[in-house]
Amino acid sequence: MDKPASTPSTAAAPPISRFSIPDLATLPDDVRARIQEVQDKAGFVPNVFLVLARRPDEFRAFFAYHDALMAKDGGGLSKGEREMIVVATSAANQCHYCVIAHGAILRIYEKRPLLADQVAVNYRKADLTPRQRAMLEFAIKVALRSPEIEDGDFARLREHGFSDEDAWDIAAIAAFFAMSNRLANATAMRPNDEFYLMGRLPKQPAGR
Amino acid sequence: MDKPASTPSTAAAPPISRFSIPDLATLPDDVRARIQEVQDKAGFVPNVFLVLARRPDEFRAFFAYHDALMAKDGGGLSKGEREMIVVATSAANQCHYCVIAHGAILRIYEKRPLLADQVAVNYRKADLTPRQRAMLEFAIKVALRSPEIEDGDFARLREHGFSDEDAWDIAAIAAFFAMSNRLANATAMRPNDEFYLMGRLPKQPAGR
Amino acid sequence: MDKPASTPSTAAAPPISRFSIPDLATLPDDVRARIQEVQDKAGFVPNVFLVLARRPDEFRAFFAYHDALMAKDGGGLSKGEREMIVVATSAANQCHYCVIAHGAILRIYEKRPLLADQVAVNYRKADLTPRQRAMLEFAIKVALRSPEIEDGDFARLREHGFSDEDAWDIAAIAAFFAMSNRLANATAMRPNDEFYLMGRLPKQPAGR
Amino acid sequence: MDKPASTPSTAAAPPISRFSIPDLATLPDDVRARIQEVQDKAGFVPNVFLVLARRPDEFRAFFAYHDALMAKDGGGLSKGEREMIVVATSAANQCHYCVIAHGAILRIYEKRPLLADQVAVNYRKADLTPRQRAMLEFAIKVALRSPEIEDGDFARLREHGFSDEDAWDIAAIAAFFAMSNRLANATAMRPNDEFYLMGRLPKQPAGR
Amino acid sequence: MDKPASTPSTAAAPPISRFSIPDLATLPDDVRARIQEVQDKAGFVPNVFLVLARRPDEFRAFFAYHDALMAKDGGGLSKGEREMIVVATSAANQCHYCVIAHGAILRIYEKRPLLADQVAVNYRKADLTPRQRAMLEFAIKVALRSPEIEDGDFARLREHGFSDEDAWDIAAIAAFFAMSNRLANATAMRPNDEFYLMGRLPKQPAGR
Amino acid sequence: MDKPASTPSTAAAPPISRFSIPDLATLPDDVRARIQEVQDKAGFVPNVFLVLARRPDEFRAFFAYHDALMAKDGGGLSKGEREMIVVATSAANQCHYCVIAHGAILRIYEKRPLLADQVAVNYRKADLTPRQRAMLEFAIKVALRSPEIEDGDFARLREHGFSDEDAWDIAAIAAFFAMSNRLANATAMRPNDEFYLMGRLPKQPAGR
Repeated sequence: MDKPASTPSTAAAPPISRFSIPDLATLPDDVRARIQEVQDKAGFVPNVFLVLARRPDEFRAFFAYHDALMAKDGGGLSKGEREMIVVATSAANQCHYCVIAHGAILRIYEKRPLLADQVAVNYRKADLTPRQRAMLEFAIKVALRSPEIEDGDFARLREHGFSDEDAWDIAAIAAFFAMSNRLANATAMRPNDEFYLMGRLPKQPAGR
Repeated sequence: MDKPASTPSTAAAPPISRFSIPDLATLPDDVRARIQEVQDKAGFVPNVFLVLARRPDEFRAFFAYHDALMAKDGGGLSKGEREMIVVATSAANQCHYCVIAHGAILRIYEKRPLLADQVAVNYRKADLTPRQRAMLEFAIKVALRSPEIEDGDFARLREHGFSDEDAWDIAAIAAFFAMSNRLANATAMRPNDEFYLMGRLPKQPAGR
Repeated sequence: MDKPASTPSTAAAPPISRFSIPDLATLPDDVRARIQEVQDKAGFVPNVFLVLARRPDEFRAFFAYHDALMAKDGGGLSKGEREMIVVATSAANQCHYCVIAHGAILRIYEKRPLLADQVAVNYRKADLTPRQRAMLEFAIKVALRSPEIEDGDFARLREHGFSDEDAWDIAAIAAFFAMSNRLANATAMRPNDEFYLMGRLPKQPAGR
Repeated sequence: MDKPASTPSTAAAPPISRFSIPDLATLPDDVRARIQEVQDKAGFVPNVFLVLARRPDEFRAFFAYHDALMAKDGGGLSKGEREMIVVATSAANQCHYCVIAHGAILRIYEKRPLLADQVAVNYRKADLTPRQRAMLEFAIKVALRSPEIEDGDFARLREHGFSDEDAWDIAAIAAFFAMSNRLANATAMRPNDEFYLMGRLPKQPAGR
Repeated sequence: MDKPASTPSTAAAPPISRFSIPDLATLPDDVRARIQEVQDKAGFVPNVFLVLARRPDEFRAFFAYHDALMAKDGGGLSKGEREMIVVATSAANQCHYCVIAHGAILRIYEKRPLLADQVAVNYRKADLTPRQRAMLEFAIKVALRSPEIEDGDFARLREHGFSDEDAWDIAAIAAFFAMSNRLANATAMRPNDEFYLMGRLPKQPAGR
Repeated sequence: MDKPASTPSTAAAPPISRFSIPDLATLPDDVRARIQEVQDKAGFVPNVFLVLARRPDEFRAFFAYHDALMAKDGGGLSKGEREMIVVATSAANQCHYCVIAHGAILRIYEKRPLLADQVAVNYRKADLTPRQRAMLEFAIKVALRSPEIEDGDFARLREHGFSDEDAWDIAAIAAFFAMSNRLANATAMRPNDEFYLMGRLPKQPAGR
């Protein structure tokens, strides 16, 4: 394998992937623009952008899919609830990048500094509403036992007020991160150091 | 849940999804065009196109991702080998749609009528080369035990002549179908009847 | 291990077992007669007969047991339903020989070309009656979690109209193929090529 | 289910099966003779004979198979070693009848009062030779992970002096008790009280 | 590792631990006194005392904890019932020392020679009251699936008359032996030969 | 169950256990003194002290054992390394209290704010030395697969410079937290809010 890559700016840091990171200058314009956009918004480039940029077509499809599920307006799931699904299922898949990066996003969206760690360790004991608990039970079933999904699972979701569209959202987010977790585990994708502390302080260190 | 949908043309047939199928006339032009294209090429519309059309943005991202991995030219994996990865990992995830539909595609690409069933039941006993066996061992590890992936797994792939790009391809295909299998299991996506027999006869029923 | 054996008539074919196959001429008369009988009836000799002939006493007991369960007349399970049990549990045990050979028999008995593949991938999504679904749930519990069997399992079977004798039949078939699957996996028993296509065509190559 | 049966002679004892036990007078002569024979030899009738007598054809095949594997003379496995396989795999399947009844037989054959309990709890820590340990590792793989059996497993057996015929014996015994354990678990077959103490005392109640 | 130790008095016997056993003369007075006490009471020194004596502080804490749970008077669980918990959970953890030593104690407390073997193989089929069965179901959940414990588990215990204090006792005993089993498995702690026969004979070698 | 308890000082907070917390005034002097001591040192009372105080004898044994393993001076494992074992094994057991509380302690001992989260999600990808990685592999085997421990595991530890005493320490810590995790899961022990942020900031809220 070619020499593992560190983040461009910190040559001595641990590599952010088993695979080398492309020189940003060589990337297609749209890919580089997307990376610049997130840099401007967050104050740093989350490593998933750098790792996946090695494959521009896959990069485009990955983030288009991600945005369709996670960034869309409307729907019955708040953006914080969507991140709960990511954190719970990514913990079940032991994915460093997703638990730590999306844990940060969950803390920020929900403005609850403790929630992400609770969900990551055992969602059954997290400070959640019964509706959120039911949402995560279904998400975990999608993540770990999808061949056993049956009509009863959807009935239980409806008891908690979830529509069919909401059920699709839960399943699709759990499925998308089933893919993301495996990509991150296979590439040894490293979460940026910035994520660990985000959203933990009363007045958090911005860059949000 | 709204009334489950049958394929448009066969009202009495079993539903092809737990979710209703959108009226094709209501779909965005590009989505409808893609569906028409596959209809023209295959002679029927594989159900995955109809089920996912409910969500045009996700539809576009899904097939863009699929094509980037499965339809690209070049790379160290033949198209048949890519389908072996799909069949082996989809069987591990007990996905009706993917095992049966991609089993058909595998038979057609490889022109070997027995191979798909062998790979689906137990890839360890299928008629494969040692290189293909190593490819599937890695793919199954991505599918089922991705937190345990380590450098040694890549070293073993290199012993069989797989480059880093090939390793990425194997991992990315296994990861993409980790998502697809869960979508299909959650939506109860039904494979088209046409797939079961495709590629099994000496001179197969075309539509290829 | 002695040189693995191909089927007698096709020396270049892949071996049908890790163990050598005895010369038919050396077999006891009753064993040879049984093999001749199946050859006459099916038009070929299923490999299980050749592989087990190495041990005539075990051969006799195996087929006597098999016939007592699978070929007996009467009882509450149709012959097709018995084969559903074989295919579902053999798929759970990833047994090449049994999934492919008994998948063929299931297609022929039920005259439904799609059913065997459905049952093999995930019986929960196969086109089955609720009664057949309950039958397979019990069979899979016998196959995979028999220490947890309790009175409630029998009560559920009765709700679907199964008698005590039927329950015994289901359990005994699942148990017998727990043995068969392990024998086939240990000997690397290969299914005959003929099985793959049997029962798939509108007018099946029946009479077999 | 018909009224569960106690042993004929002790009406107040716990039932020996979920299924009723046939009246011995109604059994076919050969079945009754076999039961009489074991009564004469052991001083009691092991419950497996009474439970399976409900189905004479299955009874005959079961004991014919059992005897072909467990009672044959010659072969590379001593009778005690065959019983080690039974106890180890039956413990893995949590089978009351087989662990307790065959534990007794193992103690008697080996004249080692401690061995059966050791093998039942964790064969890896039992007082065994390296050869016996390798035998049980293979047997447990047949019992629990048979789809993963590969040529290397047979090579390891050969390193310990096991021939191909011995490997078949180990696999066949583990497979036969995969069936027996499931039959016993499904029928709730109860071991006779006599088995618990057999072979534990310095001067064992032998001749049994 | 230093030379494994046999019991002091039988140099040719198998070692009782992977770790050497300290010379009793070198032990702190209180540790030696505790060992002498059990020798006087039981007629032999159970190996757990010798193995853990290597670490006097851990020895003291271990037996203080053990006695607080297992030897206390009062509480809703009889001493025999506490031993049932030990045997069932230790069997699930495949712990030689605990299954065999505490099996003996269970036989003696309950004066039922068959019970320990029944509980060790499969507690679901042991001769237990429904209350004892519920107790063991909870204990096994603590042993094997503790992250899934929820309020409903405590409700089920209350239905069988267990108080909150009893529920604590069951959980604490299962948890303590989760530790003990792992210590015994890691040190390869061997049960004394004396345990195997204790409590099995009509007139047991009691007083012990 | 009696009314679940909040921490004495914050009546509206979520309960810290399924079990009620005793009035500190009613506790034995030594138990109350130990609680006062930790309050003085840490600035708050970790909930484990309040939850276990319900049972003074168990409280004493628990903390005596804890201190013997975790607080002792000397030995080949640094205090930070001992906490790595706690965090890795407690994450495998999905224990809220232990992952979050001991994660804090690990950050403080090691003065590395990222390490605890890395170890909790997947120790295989944490920033550890090969020696520490080997230590955690053994600890996880003790936690999850202790019946399979064998001499080879100790040989691997020695290759990394661990003595027999070190191996005992690793095993004993993993075993002790196998108990602690189950106690915390059964009692629904809640980690104090203070733990989540401890050791995460450049200048940690030390003195604690």
